[in-house]
Amino acid sequence: MPPSYVLGVDFGTNSVRAVVVDCADGRTAGTSVFEYPSGDHGVITDPRDPHLARQHPGDYLEGLRAAVCGALRSAKKTKGFAAEHVAGIGVDTTGSTPIPVDARCRPLALDKRWKKHPAAQAWLWKDHTGAEEAAAITETARRHAPEYVAPIGGTYSSEWFWSKIWHCLKVAPQVFDAAASWVELADYVPAVLAGIADPAAIQRCVCAAGHKAMYAEAHGGLPDAAFLARLDPRLAALRARLYTRAWAADRAAGRLTAAWAKDLGLAAGIPIAMGGFDAHYGAVGAGVRAGTLVKIIGTSTCDVAVAPLGERMADVPGICGIVPGSVMPGYYGLEAGQSAVGDLLNWWVTEVCEGKPALHQRLTGEAARSRPGESGLLALDWNNGNRTILVDPRLTGLLLGQTLHTSRAEVYRALIEATAFGARAIVERLKEYGVPIERVVCCGGIAEKNDLFMQIYADVLGRPMLIAGSPQTTALGAAISAAVAAGRYPTFEAAQAKMTSLQAKRFTPKKAASAVYDELYGMYRELHDAFGGVPRGRGDFGSVMKRLLALRERVASSA
Amino acid sequence: MPPSYVLGVDFGTNSVRAVVVDCADGRTAGTSVFEYPSGDHGVITDPRDPHLARQHPGDYLEGLRAAVCGALRSAKKTKGFAAEHVAGIGVDTTGSTPIPVDARCRPLALDKRWKKHPAAQAWLWKDHTGAEEAAAITETARRHAPEYVAPIGGTYSSEWFWSKIWHCLKVAPQVFDAAASWVELADYVPAVLAGIADPAAIQRCVCAAGHKAMYAEAHGGLPDAAFLARLDPRLAALRARLYTRAWAADRAAGRLTAAWAKDLGLAAGIPIAMGGFDAHYGAVGAGVRAGTLVKIIGTSTCDVAVAPLGERMADVPGICGIVPGSVMPGYYGLEAGQSAVGDLLNWWVTEVCEGKPALHQRLTGEAARSRPGESGLLALDWNNGNRTILVDPRLTGLLLGQTLHTSRAEVYRALIEATAFGARAIVERLKEYGVPIERVVCCGGIAEKNDLFMQIYADVLGRPMLIAGSPQTTALGAAISAAVAAGRYPTFEAAQAKMTSLQAKRFTPKKAASAVYDELYGMYRELHDAFGGVPRGRGDFGSVMKRLLALRERVASSA
Repeated sequence: MPPSYVLGVDFGTNSVRAVVVDCADGRTAGTSVFEYPSGDHGVITDPRDPHLARQHPGDYLEGLRAAVCGALRSAKKTKGFAAEHVAGIGVDTTGSTPIPVDARCRPLALDKRWKKHPAAQAWLWKDHTGAEEAAAITETARRHAPEYVAPIGGTYSSEWFWSKIWHCLKVAPQVFDAAASWVELADYVPAVLAGIADPAAIQRCVCAAGHKAMYAEAHGGLPDAAFLARLDPRLAALRARLYTRAWAADRAAGRLTAAWAKDLGLAAGIPIAMGGFDAHYGAVGAGVRAGTLVKIIGTSTCDVAVAPLGERMADVPGICGIVPGSVMPGYYGLEAGQSAVGDLLNWWVTEVCEGKPALHQRLTGEAARSRPGESGLLALDWNNGNRTILVDPRLTGLLLGQTLHTSRAEVYRALIEATAFGARAIVERLKEYGVPIERVVCCGGIAEKNDLFMQIYADVLGRPMLIAGSPQTTALGAAISAAVAAGRYPTFEAAQAKMTSLQAKRFTPKKAASAVYDELYGMYRELHDAFGGVPRGRGDFGSVMKRLLALRERVASSA
Repeated sequence: MPPSYVLGVDFGTNSVRAVVVDCADGRTAGTSVFEYPSGDHGVITDPRDPHLARQHPGDYLEGLRAAVCGALRSAKKTKGFAAEHVAGIGVDTTGSTPIPVDARCRPLALDKRWKKHPAAQAWLWKDHTGAEEAAAITETARRHAPEYVAPIGGTYSSEWFWSKIWHCLKVAPQVFDAAASWVELADYVPAVLAGIADPAAIQRCVCAAGHKAMYAEAHGGLPDAAFLARLDPRLAALRARLYTRAWAADRAAGRLTAAWAKDLGLAAGIPIAMGGFDAHYGAVGAGVRAGTLVKIIGTSTCDVAVAPLGERMADVPGICGIVPGSVMPGYYGLEAGQSAVGDLLNWWVTEVCEGKPALHQRLTGEAARSRPGESGLLALDWNNGNRTILVDPRLTGLLLGQTLHTSRAEVYRALIEATAFGARAIVERLKEYGVPIERVVCCGGIAEKNDLFMQIYADVLGRPMLIAGSPQTTALGAAISAAVAAGRYPTFEAAQAKMTSLQAKRFTPKKAASAVYDELYGMYRELHDAFGGVPRGRGDFGSVMKRLLALRERVASSA
């Protein structure tokens, strides 16, 4: 059998990464990253509205070409590689990132009439302008159709599909009216490569549909027209111009057109795998399977797990979504996440300490010298709201326990701990609802670089932290989907067995530290539940500062 | 009448300041500051115990000589001044600062056997090693003698006389046994100048006795032996070696000895006024009178008010003390305070921002550009505990409402606001118990230099902030006591009328800002009461972050 390669293309917030992967063992043959050049990494912002985050769709096409061509050039250095060995392409993107398109699937913003209109762009995952709409959708669903929000944690988010489109309708009705349909970026890129020119013909991935658009086969697809009409009759009318069916990744999105094949230097007609969200394909690339939680730790964190279809699956309150087939065919895909992890540490270093990125290292080093409980600090990790398990963007940060001697490194450590407590809340919620978590596999830059961070997570979660073998699990996962689409493997599981790995390095919980963190986590949950508005959530706040001081003294005296 | 001058000598935490003042109008004729040279401004600390703060008493004698001689030298530049015109000396000091002394009134630490023993030093006001003893005293008094703690707010502090002495007894019984008596620094310095060599002959000021040692004429002086025996029989035995009577400042402490007169270049036999605490004499120098609250704003804050003796005076829970004659003869002296004000801002600048003092100016400038409520932040000012109205050193800081965009200047402003809310809690508590506050006079470096700080206080308190005319109200107050002791004025009021003044500059509350701060103060009190353990104190924490965000948005949209 001749050597066989697949391409994984990962559309991140700041860049596009293409990776050429060897189907035999998942090894990288070539890679290339294209940083969005315009403005703030291509992100369109509005100084008057911090919630707005858009991107010009032209960036995606430019990035696609540049990254793929770069990766192929880089792969040519690998002995025996030739572009005609590339058997398929997989694509993952951020999401929910809906794009308004015309009747030929062309993004409105590629038309010069709409080029500069902020509502005609791609609405990035981190755009929160639809917060009011999200609250109204949640309210309406809870009253009239609780089955729509039950599988996505009971609360509809401002980051999601309908919140954004409805907000567009309200603030830019002319854009809404001009859009023949709306397409998720994860569906748009494969459709472009496959030359699809009719929105109705686009293969829509169930991961976007199910996690972000309240799609479920069980209730007949997207929310029904009557429900949407309660929001706005024009949304009900839009429904018919979207899609009736969404698919798991065992179906391909199409085949590469001759024009794109020529452009990229690939063989025409190779399969384009179904698109998917970066977190989902990242989990695939990290080796997700039943009993495994994959944590993709970056500026924010995505937590992904799967559970075999067919077993009874409860709705898990506060979990962003439980969608059949969304992560891998044959499984429920479960998605959770934390709104700020790396971003929280970046905030401290950049905004408060006004330091350069190297300050992370110094603070990590100093923080590593103090022990759990020794600072007397306790923080909530909500500077960017809480995605799981409270699903509430209108929450903010809290830091408690500071004295006149508290150092910036102690706060840095408390912020890491706060994100670890947030991670533990997610794991405990999953366990509580019967989703077993036997191993935790982490990926992302922080997991690979920051040992203190990983040790704190092991101690707080009370279980080993494993690290994915590939530094580019997301693109690898997309490549795996391409390998399956190209028939190189019969199933995702078979492809994962050959193409994914774990690092030898792992972090094991330390008993004494875990005991202290159990106590701190108890206090974290008191604050979490009370400030998060959990019914009956109430801490004994009159004693919390004293309990922290007592813990601090106990830790100090045990030195 | 020949020109007449008095000397005010102010023993601060870091330095001794002597001021030569013209009796006619309170103007400074000469001044000199002596910084304690050894170690950290003379403060003895213990890296293993952050609560320990002591000072070698020899520092006080060295500082006394240097500062007085320096001030006299400096005054000689004033036309018509001569040292023989100095008619009296007044002294103020920090406190409670008890010093163990031998049978000849000599501090133990001046003996070479005890020179280096930490328990044989002066126990500085900010020494908190007696926290457990303070709690036990409070508990015992509440059960057996509530009248002892009622006038001092219901809670005995670790900063006070008996907590420190009892702690010494526990950790260094040999020092306790060697001490013939214990003398407050405020009584020690006048006794030295007056050549008193018998502890029983020292004139003890009622400000130290009443505010810090549970002394009250109403219950027969110091706590009775039976009460002290409940703590430790050796404390009961010490009682007889302390004092039976303490005095207001209309009685002199003694007359200058010939030896000291020669040393300092002054006339022998001039009166030494009764010593007093810096905050009390500072209030006198700022023009305290019935209806006036004097705020001495420094690293921490002292709030002082007076109310005419004879009128019925309720105990005010949480106010550090209500003591007849303690601030001025003829009045109840009321003392409150905040444990960290300048120190809280210094913590942010030095520990967190790792900035130099000049950063205060930059942050103040940036903070001045944001409006009340605009940051969405709310803080508790408890990094050093809460002195008033909760009287609880075991409380810590809290910061709430931070996002990923929160800047260090916004936090700086939130910390200023937190101290202003703490100040408002004090004023409201006084009003609630019938102590009228008609004007607020501020003094100290922050009041003179930081306009933003003062404007925030005016807006939060909803009343004008006045500023004392003298930049050295503390030493001026001590000088006023000397002018009265020397017979230059019949009363403190008469002396104040001539010798004190206000700056023309004042800060007036702005209506819109005050309205926002009323809301923020409401939320501050929710946090304050719940985290402070106030019975029935409970906030609606499930909505507090959302209320802050809503306020922030309202403020932003009204721009």
